[in-house]
Amino acid sequence: MAEFSQLDAGGRLRHLLSLDGLDADLIRELLDRAGTWCCRPGELPPRSRDLQGWTIANLFAEPSTRTRASFELAALRLGADAINLDVMLSSRVKGESVLDTIYTLQAMQVDVFVIRDAEPGLPEYVARHVEGHVSVISGGEAHLSHPTQGLLDALTILQAKGGFRDLVVTIVGDIRHSRVARSAASVLTTLATGELRLVAPAELMPEPDEFPTAVRCESFDAGIAHADVVMMLRIQKERIAATSQPDPDRYHERYGLSAARLRRARPDAIVMHPGPMNRGVEICSDVADGPQSVIRQQVANGVAVRMAVLAHIAAARNARTL
Amino acid sequence: MAEFSQLDAGGRLRHLLSLDGLDADLIRELLDRAGTWCCRPGELPPRSRDLQGWTIANLFAEPSTRTRASFELAALRLGADAINLDVMLSSRVKGESVLDTIYTLQAMQVDVFVIRDAEPGLPEYVARHVEGHVSVISGGEAHLSHPTQGLLDALTILQAKGGFRDLVVTIVGDIRHSRVARSAASVLTTLATGELRLVAPAELMPEPDEFPTAVRCESFDAGIAHADVVMMLRIQKERIAATSQPDPDRYHERYGLSAARLRRARPDAIVMHPGPMNRGVEICSDVADGPQSVIRQQVANGVAVRMAVLAHIAAARNARTL
Amino acid sequence: MAEFSQLDAGGRLRHLLSLDGLDADLIRELLDRAGTWCCRPGELPPRSRDLQGWTIANLFAEPSTRTRASFELAALRLGADAINLDVMLSSRVKGESVLDTIYTLQAMQVDVFVIRDAEPGLPEYVARHVEGHVSVISGGEAHLSHPTQGLLDALTILQAKGGFRDLVVTIVGDIRHSRVARSAASVLTTLATGELRLVAPAELMPEPDEFPTAVRCESFDAGIAHADVVMMLRIQKERIAATSQPDPDRYHERYGLSAARLRRARPDAIVMHPGPMNRGVEICSDVADGPQSVIRQQVANGVAVRMAVLAHIAAARNARTL
Repeated sequence: MAEFSQLDAGGRLRHLLSLDGLDADLIRELLDRAGTWCCRPGELPPRSRDLQGWTIANLFAEPSTRTRASFELAALRLGADAINLDVMLSSRVKGESVLDTIYTLQAMQVDVFVIRDAEPGLPEYVARHVEGHVSVISGGEAHLSHPTQGLLDALTILQAKGGFRDLVVTIVGDIRHSRVARSAASVLTTLATGELRLVAPAELMPEPDEFPTAVRCESFDAGIAHADVVMMLRIQKERIAATSQPDPDRYHERYGLSAARLRRARPDAIVMHPGPMNRGVEICSDVADGPQSVIRQQVANGVAVRMAVLAHIAAARNARTL
Repeated sequence: MAEFSQLDAGGRLRHLLSLDGLDADLIRELLDRAGTWCCRPGELPPRSRDLQGWTIANLFAEPSTRTRASFELAALRLGADAINLDVMLSSRVKGESVLDTIYTLQAMQVDVFVIRDAEPGLPEYVARHVEGHVSVISGGEAHLSHPTQGLLDALTILQAKGGFRDLVVTIVGDIRHSRVARSAASVLTTLATGELRLVAPAELMPEPDEFPTAVRCESFDAGIAHADVVMMLRIQKERIAATSQPDPDRYHERYGLSAARLRRARPDAIVMHPGPMNRGVEICSDVADGPQSVIRQQVANGVAVRMAVLAHIAAARNARTL
Repeated sequence: MAEFSQLDAGGRLRHLLSLDGLDADLIRELLDRAGTWCCRPGELPPRSRDLQGWTIANLFAEPSTRTRASFELAALRLGADAINLDVMLSSRVKGESVLDTIYTLQAMQVDVFVIRDAEPGLPEYVARHVEGHVSVISGGEAHLSHPTQGLLDALTILQAKGGFRDLVVTIVGDIRHSRVARSAASVLTTLATGELRLVAPAELMPEPDEFPTAVRCESFDAGIAHADVVMMLRIQKERIAATSQPDPDRYHERYGLSAARLRRARPDAIVMHPGPMNRGVEICSDVADGPQSVIRQQVANGVAVRMAVLAHIAAARNARTL
């Protein structure tokens, strides 16, 4: 199979499937652009006509209120038409192939497909087959990649800390199965983050060849020491059972973020979580809602980042067709 | 728990959770404003840009085609972006708390939440926790409250009768479990309606301390005599079984509105029903579709009332932030 | 029951339920208009404000990603508000009659209902009952009619062949149960197509009194000879079992379109399919994706045709109310 690139000949994004291979300049451009779409609570969100006349199709096979809504609002606030389809589902009902569904929507002049599916490789498979003017954005791909989440995490850290070079970032939880952790590690590595630490029980650590730049430790108390950023991951109940702390209370004791444990981090450390949270399992409510939490800022940045990606893709297409 | 008010310091609506405690002036202002959004069939409905740049999220946990569609159209015709989420459902799938779902959407710059849920207290619970610029509108709360339905009922009566002071209004059916009856009684009492009568089998009458201003009677023939307004409620099949008329035919005989029974009311009496109707149970088709029925006008007024509430809330927020 | 006409007094469409009875001039006008809404891939699709202020309700009882999305995009690109309702379903939940659901939405100022339902007669039943300014468009009715599919098929043939008079059009597959075949035959007959052939196993042939102008043959090899247009139909697995070729492989051998079989048609023959395709059953992938396939063009024309029908209906209403 031929090499696939999500970049066009000019080095701009044609698709966004993964943060791997994006250079620091492109990521910084996207974060800068996203920064211009942020606003304070109570202000009407910035809008533009950058995507006027464009059609965005949100194809979400997994239930995902938050990410689907975030993409839908990003599209609407840029002036696009947005349609939502539980498309993998309805395709299965009638037995149509994924690609025929995509070709059908493409023929209806859909410009951007936002795809979330549990099947690894699906976004690239679609991106390889769409026409030259059509773009694919991954809304979360199996355990592999969640690029807009990685960007919103980077933007949130940048806003709080002003940079990455001197930071210690600790990611905690089910790293093995986490697309959030993989995309965060990718973008943080590209941005030359000082130190990246992974904290997880042995069973939830990734394979040795993954996360090559990260320090691994099984002890949360050790991993959180002097951290600037503590990024908690969602843990699924059934995954807890497979660990050496096989019930939620014992898991919480070892790998939950409490106020006491947070005091081991730097005093100005920020606390992140991609949501949805299991309060009382991987994170205590007083921390999730406390002064060091930037969890809601992450969500707000999610819309801004998705607007930035869509606007960048539109500008890139316009530049190609001039 | 601190006292909660749905009004802001200026006495305008910040939220709309209940009609209890709204004074007659505020209700009349809403009805007047709604009157300006009405139009005749075949005319294009009035539109405005009052909510341009606003985002409305419809969170409906119960299936409700009509009310959800009514709020969605009200939002679109005021220029807002509207997103629909089966949010309680999808939250349950991933186990996220209601409040985290709300905070997530709030962080995406949702300005108004329209909430329908079977859990009593949920709208107020949400309203207590959202940020100062965010509003909550109840789209129907358990058996307790359905404020926009109460307003549309009042508007429909006002249009037909010109006022409330000399009217006899008879509400018939499962009053015990009806949010429609409670909101109607609230607004009609505030507007000083002449006489409010409740007609129901004993098992479906509300507790003695509820509906304090209303006259109760078990006989429909007595309760409808000389009525100006006959408001029929939807009866659920399983509720009929618990009454002294335990099958639908016998229930219909005692508590169904037929043309014969309607003749006991005033000749110019109007017939109302919140929908969806059980034709042949609580109401006969010839009455539902007859010249005294204002049932479709109620639905049309529903969109107008919801536009009025949204526009009022937007104007109130703008006034607060000037 | 009184005669029903989908045309208004001026001979323009008020509803579109069937292509039967539409004269060639009206069909050509719709196809011409649709032609103006077509664009090349990569161009932003043409938009207008023809339906600004209108409300379109898509009521789809069957799962249908493609047709529902096509109507939704057509409405949005004409400036209308579009709402989607799984309305038959949610009506059943609460036991409301179809007509009450329609009256409710009509009272909310819905201007056009797009209806797909498995129940024959439902679109006409609704069209007979809506108010004079409201229109009904069938999005597919049982096995009987799929008028916008018929129009998009005609437009696709016209674009490829420039006319109909000298053409041999062969329709292949489960003609007995196909609304696509019936609407195609209707429009092709009105447009005086040279020869219409039906190819199917005996069990899937329509009743003798249907398709009066068509030539029938059980042999695909005979039916495809010198054809200009080969229109394949979707075959459902359970229908194959009832034929003389009771498994998909044997069905494919007799009634599947392969490259070898396609060579029996004219060298410039086009291949059509309404989708979704069963690749390897009624059609081979190399044909579906080959140079003679116009299958994606059909989908693109679908949006254009639906825009044309909506714009025609809006212009007709405006003309009636002047």
